[in-house]
Amino acid sequence: MRDGIQPIIVAGGGEIARIYINAVRALNSGEAILDEMGIGASRLNARVIIAGLGNNAYPVVPTSTDEISLALASGKAVVLGGLYPGHSTNATAALVAEISKADLFLNATNVDGVYSEDPKTSKNARKFDSIDTQTLLRLIRRSPIRAGSYELMDPLSIMIIERSKIKTRVILCSPQNIREAVKGVPVGTEIFVVK
Amino acid sequence: MRDGIQPIIVAGGGEIARIYINAVRALNSGEAILDEMGIGASRLNARVIIAGLGNNAYPVVPTSTDEISLALASGKAVVLGGLYPGHSTNATAALVAEISKADLFLNATNVDGVYSEDPKTSKNARKFDSIDTQTLLRLIRRSPIRAGSYELMDPLSIMIIERSKIKTRVILCSPQNIREAVKGVPVGTEIFVVK
Amino acid sequence: MRDGIQPIIVAGGGEIARIYINAVRALNSGEAILDEMGIGASRLNARVIIAGLGNNAYPVVPTSTDEISLALASGKAVVLGGLYPGHSTNATAALVAEISKADLFLNATNVDGVYSEDPKTSKNARKFDSIDTQTLLRLIRRSPIRAGSYELMDPLSIMIIERSKIKTRVILCSPQNIREAVKGVPVGTEIFVVK
Amino acid sequence: MRDGIQPIIVAGGGEIARIYINAVRALNSGEAILDEMGIGASRLNARVIIAGLGNNAYPVVPTSTDEISLALASGKAVVLGGLYPGHSTNATAALVAEISKADLFLNATNVDGVYSEDPKTSKNARKFDSIDTQTLLRLIRRSPIRAGSYELMDPLSIMIIERSKIKTRVILCSPQNIREAVKGVPVGTEIFVVK
Amino acid sequence: MRDGIQPIIVAGGGEIARIYINAVRALNSGEAILDEMGIGASRLNARVIIAGLGNNAYPVVPTSTDEISLALASGKAVVLGGLYPGHSTNATAALVAEISKADLFLNATNVDGVYSEDPKTSKNARKFDSIDTQTLLRLIRRSPIRAGSYELMDPLSIMIIERSKIKTRVILCSPQNIREAVKGVPVGTEIFVVK
Amino acid sequence: MRDGIQPIIVAGGGEIARIYINAVRALNSGEAILDEMGIGASRLNARVIIAGLGNNAYPVVPTSTDEISLALASGKAVVLGGLYPGHSTNATAALVAEISKADLFLNATNVDGVYSEDPKTSKNARKFDSIDTQTLLRLIRRSPIRAGSYELMDPLSIMIIERSKIKTRVILCSPQNIREAVKGVPVGTEIFVVK
Repeated sequence: MRDGIQPIIVAGGGEIARIYINAVRALNSGEAILDEMGIGASRLNARVIIAGLGNNAYPVVPTSTDEISLALASGKAVVLGGLYPGHSTNATAALVAEISKADLFLNATNVDGVYSEDPKTSKNARKFDSIDTQTLLRLIRRSPIRAGSYELMDPLSIMIIERSKIKTRVILCSPQNIREAVKGVPVGTEIFVVK
Repeated sequence: MRDGIQPIIVAGGGEIARIYINAVRALNSGEAILDEMGIGASRLNARVIIAGLGNNAYPVVPTSTDEISLALASGKAVVLGGLYPGHSTNATAALVAEISKADLFLNATNVDGVYSEDPKTSKNARKFDSIDTQTLLRLIRRSPIRAGSYELMDPLSIMIIERSKIKTRVILCSPQNIREAVKGVPVGTEIFVVK
Repeated sequence: MRDGIQPIIVAGGGEIARIYINAVRALNSGEAILDEMGIGASRLNARVIIAGLGNNAYPVVPTSTDEISLALASGKAVVLGGLYPGHSTNATAALVAEISKADLFLNATNVDGVYSEDPKTSKNARKFDSIDTQTLLRLIRRSPIRAGSYELMDPLSIMIIERSKIKTRVILCSPQNIREAVKGVPVGTEIFVVK
Repeated sequence: MRDGIQPIIVAGGGEIARIYINAVRALNSGEAILDEMGIGASRLNARVIIAGLGNNAYPVVPTSTDEISLALASGKAVVLGGLYPGHSTNATAALVAEISKADLFLNATNVDGVYSEDPKTSKNARKFDSIDTQTLLRLIRRSPIRAGSYELMDPLSIMIIERSKIKTRVILCSPQNIREAVKGVPVGTEIFVVK
Repeated sequence: MRDGIQPIIVAGGGEIARIYINAVRALNSGEAILDEMGIGASRLNARVIIAGLGNNAYPVVPTSTDEISLALASGKAVVLGGLYPGHSTNATAALVAEISKADLFLNATNVDGVYSEDPKTSKNARKFDSIDTQTLLRLIRRSPIRAGSYELMDPLSIMIIERSKIKTRVILCSPQNIREAVKGVPVGTEIFVVK
Repeated sequence: MRDGIQPIIVAGGGEIARIYINAVRALNSGEAILDEMGIGASRLNARVIIAGLGNNAYPVVPTSTDEISLALASGKAVVLGGLYPGHSTNATAALVAEISKADLFLNATNVDGVYSEDPKTSKNARKFDSIDTQTLLRLIRRSPIRAGSYELMDPLSIMIIERSKIKTRVILCSPQNIREAVKGVPVGTEIFVVK
């Protein structure tokens, strides 16, 4: 890749995953199948991204850690969706960052960082420039803001970040923010591991 | 299955396939990937149907003729989506009817049979009680009604119906029509092969 | 199976997993590969169990949710090892209980239930007859007994038990305890979900 | 590859496919299995070609569009046989030309181009220097020359050539003709798409 | 199966394997690929047999020991071709007899048993009613009759027969001989293991 | 790889294979499963070696000849375990040497070459500098030293060495011996094929 950077992109399931999950939930056929629907939709989303990247992307969506290793060996951008039932997109991305020994794990989402409280409902919400994983874990567990924070980073992803000391940053998703974060500009919130 | 009938259901891609196909077409990355998106979406749709059928259905979506053979051997309802790029849902369904030596191939669609002209635009449109494959093929090729008829039955599916003399019926999709067609009531339009 | 019971057995990695994990950890090649070694060893352990069960067992170790569904359809005892990196044996077992809509999830381990404190180090340790998932989660998080409790039941497995309301029991592993738990005798500690 | 050209070769089933197809047809076990026999034989033929090309060829016969994408990424000559039941060798080759965005699709066969009538039976047969897809389609459908023309190019391959505007040429198979066609010499018959 | 017998049939490569092997040998591309060509051809032959057996046969050709285990669980006749390079058809059949714990391994071939010398060239050739594996091994190694005997039973198949004490019989291939051998009639030559 | 050498390493099952094989043998469930346990353990061993080699190694353990071909095309060191039941590690290594057209097959083991008798039990044991395959085969068959020699090189591996004339050397396993053997220093015992 240009500039010696090999991006690995983990697509979420998005709106279409929600449509399928709602359809199947109405059939009352269990939670496990819901995860599978989300994984299926996220893989279709990954194919759209691959189509957009053309020859810059590895042409196939990897579906296991072995396939990820083979895809990484190509030197091209690797795009995947969900991997396993029970894993959020965040946990999948953390796992892929671990497998690939990524220099940086960017959680590009719809808020511009981690807040002390839900910024949508509280005036006192304060954005962190950086936060350690244990503090983040306690924050996530505090019930009032649980639901929203869960989306940000869940316990499994934090466990993986900790055990492999993965450099992590939560940013608002935009081409400019991604570019800056890659260059080392301190956008969003850095998540760090206390040794 | 109850009554000694083993249904095989081929799901189309529907609205979600169209969303993905439009997204990818806008990226100008070729037609082949569009078929793949449609197949991916139709397989998610097949999973929804499997979830709805519960223990009456084979639990996995087959993706090749060998997997279809194994699924059929279970005696349960088999639900699949698209199989191969370049095949319409109709052609896939005809192929599956051929592989499984199905007693009846039902094309359950949004019109109640085959018409001499497009019933939406022509007052003179006449519904056929039955039509032979070669006449249907000529009808499909006549340009004014081509686009719509294509959806009804394409040349590859007609070729398969012919070579394996598959008993076929085009019906308006409804539980009652399906039940009646299975019982032998002459709903919709029968497609037959002249020997 | 005899008595209308279809057991599903999830083997852990045990001593051999620890040998491999220690060997690879010494090579300093990352945490992700350690999970893979554990999964590999647990699948060999699963094969030993299958060999012991003979014709009562499904002959192959399933490695994905689709393969589990097909194995379950055989009506035979299903034996598997780990499924995915990042999942403990407990989380895998909970996931399999969810997929299979199991009537009972038995965590057969080396303690005879859940204790208020580590029974090896504290005289005040009290065994619970039953405990709800949220209390168990708080117990696991309390640092002094964290390490040991983690083995008992980790956050991901509790999350799955909660979302699918899986009837769960932690018991000391012995043929008699398993037999009794299956019959409904209240051995060990019941884990329940507060609605 | 030398000269910046990456050939993709689609082998037909040939004589051995015909032996198998005749053997199975005699067993009266349906048409679908015949296609499978032809695909199997064509893949063995593809292996022979790979053996002949040695290190210039991708070492494995791809059997799906994803595997074709991975093979193409190697930069080596890619050799495959049939892909899917219901697809002629021509349709497979057209599909592969579409997937790979090939600059040129050569149908190297046993006649030196497309004729107005069967050159073996009619003195008036005239060879086309070029022909558009719609005219070719009408020619194929005209019954007297149908059987022979079918081999030349079938409706599905023409549909794919049209939808992706693939530059196509029907030539008599010989090393010299292939070399010239690649250089742009107008051998055989060009098939073009009217916009 | 009828009469409580589940046949497992291992097809050889036959004439078509020889055609492919000769074609590839002429390309001088190594011995390993020759085995692969033979395996490919034998699997096509297996499909022909499956087509002939119709619903009495497992519909797919197994290609690994796990797939054989799953096929056996169906209770239907299982038909396969070669499995692995380096294995003769005899060795494959012996391995399958071992995996399936077969009651009887029939080597149905073109001679009516094991002879002391090549019956085609020596008047003194004497047919054995039974022969132990070690004597057979010495017979095979004696150079004058090596080539022909090799076809009969090779060292790897004898090793497998020995280690698993598989009841084995070499017979002239005919429906009647197979029927009689299954009933226990002492046709051909019995191969036995000295304890 | 450095120095233009691409090593291919075939790991044996070692101590852990023996543990599993003993466990399963005690269950009396047949010999075939024992081979499978050995293959499983050797593949875990292969993963440990891959972890140790880091980026110098192909990241995945190949499990078939096609996967070996793809791994070789990467230009990296390829590490595998067992491939097929019925094959010793030696036979697997010989097969891989054949597939890859290796310049040299090194059997790095726990003795420093081939001896005329078992060096542990006989004072008269003489080490060969070189030995031809047919003499080696006779040596292996001579019962007193059979068991030990078998480990050195079995009949199937000798057959493969012969048919493909693979340059082979049996050496005491040590980094220095491997380095020297690769450079052409005559360490251990050379095995050669008489034309």
